[in-house]
Amino acid sequence: MNPTIDLINARSSTRTFAEAPITAAEREAVLAATLRAPTAGAMMLYSIIQIEDQALKNRLAETCDDQPFIARAPWVLVFVADMQRWMDLFSASEVHSLAGVGHRNAPGLGDLMMACSDALIAAQTAVIAAESLGIGSCYIGDILENAEVHAELLGLPNHTLPIGMLVFGRPAASRPPTPHCTSHAVHTDRYQRLSAAELQALSAELEQMYAPHGIKPGFANYPQTIYARKFACDFMSEMNRSVEWWLRRWETPER
Amino acid sequence: MNPTIDLINARSSTRTFAEAPITAAEREAVLAATLRAPTAGAMMLYSIIQIEDQALKNRLAETCDDQPFIARAPWVLVFVADMQRWMDLFSASEVHSLAGVGHRNAPGLGDLMMACSDALIAAQTAVIAAESLGIGSCYIGDILENAEVHAELLGLPNHTLPIGMLVFGRPAASRPPTPHCTSHAVHTDRYQRLSAAELQALSAELEQMYAPHGIKPGFANYPQTIYARKFACDFMSEMNRSVEWWLRRWETPER
Repeated sequence: MNPTIDLINARSSTRTFAEAPITAAEREAVLAATLRAPTAGAMMLYSIIQIEDQALKNRLAETCDDQPFIARAPWVLVFVADMQRWMDLFSASEVHSLAGVGHRNAPGLGDLMMACSDALIAAQTAVIAAESLGIGSCYIGDILENAEVHAELLGLPNHTLPIGMLVFGRPAASRPPTPHCTSHAVHTDRYQRLSAAELQALSAELEQMYAPHGIKPGFANYPQTIYARKFACDFMSEMNRSVEWWLRRWETPER
Repeated sequence: MNPTIDLINARSSTRTFAEAPITAAEREAVLAATLRAPTAGAMMLYSIIQIEDQALKNRLAETCDDQPFIARAPWVLVFVADMQRWMDLFSASEVHSLAGVGHRNAPGLGDLMMACSDALIAAQTAVIAAESLGIGSCYIGDILENAEVHAELLGLPNHTLPIGMLVFGRPAASRPPTPHCTSHAVHTDRYQRLSAAELQALSAELEQMYAPHGIKPGFANYPQTIYARKFACDFMSEMNRSVEWWLRRWETPER
């Protein structure tokens, strides 16, 4: 179609990296493009933490569900939903002297959703900009887990939340395209719940698409596998616990 | 640099649309590219609702902070964080018969964060794919407001949340590049809080960047303007109220 759509269509996640380095000029170009991403009210409610310290990278490889390829990634960025910068700017700008304003001393969960949106929109801009330079990437959602540990490791204050981490590197080999099951993803005007027959058809479609690595012994169908391995599983318990922790902390005034 | 990075760098939001239509082939190409976006565990925890009904578009233009350009947009997509499809698949797949699994009958806020991530990563993929075809776009975060109204209008069940809306159309005129204040956005290894001097410098930088439309009469500096107009303001109260409502509903089992 065109180079941009072609590269989006050809992309899969990269978890095995070639030795080839990412140059300083490439990092700069990807970051500059990333920082052009649109943000809510042009407030830019996010920050990016570049992980340069190899010891920290190694530690994150452990704390993010023990995935050693994280430590081997030549470039790692954490995308942080960030109202802290604005809260600090507000405090320093004597906003509390303003009359006729309903004052707030901490952000709420609506502010959090806007900040997460800004951060993720920027993250995907980074993914596509990197891909255009032949640099692959993989999202690591696990940065939301082990909240207390990650807050400490990254020095994150109350009004921040690490919504996603990205690892980048040139793919070591050609990446087989991940199948995507999209047959029920687009609705018109209203959300449409699936009928019993449609659910059965979707289950069969998923099964075929993700076979042979889909169904594990002991499970009758693909949704059972996903339920046990990706929903009613330990890492999602930890993710749910951690997110509650991040959310309560986000809303807590500093003193 | 290359066509993809160039178009990212040149993009600004589009709110005034040319008469030129978006063809069916273009919509199809953008949607196909969007559906290639990576998702957590390849579970695709989102849905897209295309708004085709002009009356519904008109209504959303009102309920999303009275922005008439929404009604004039040739193409409107709502990006929905969606665990409902999987919850329905799980129910239809007799997951509750599985032994040795800690059962869950509703998604949690960790699942929500993954679903919002999937939806926003897809949304920004749509933005960039559209831009590559000369089609501009604008995010409408206000779709999170007026939660009860939007849930009803879009027929959204419990385990869904409309994390963002995008309007698309060919720009009616060249778009002046929005300034972005990025001087403190990238940190190394740890989040760095700004010192008093840095906050003062940032405030001055913002003031210069967003002048002349930045500071309104009655405010001493740019952060005060933002505080009053975009933080301690009515629409953020409504956003915060609505998000609490969406979150409680998301976690509520269906019966």
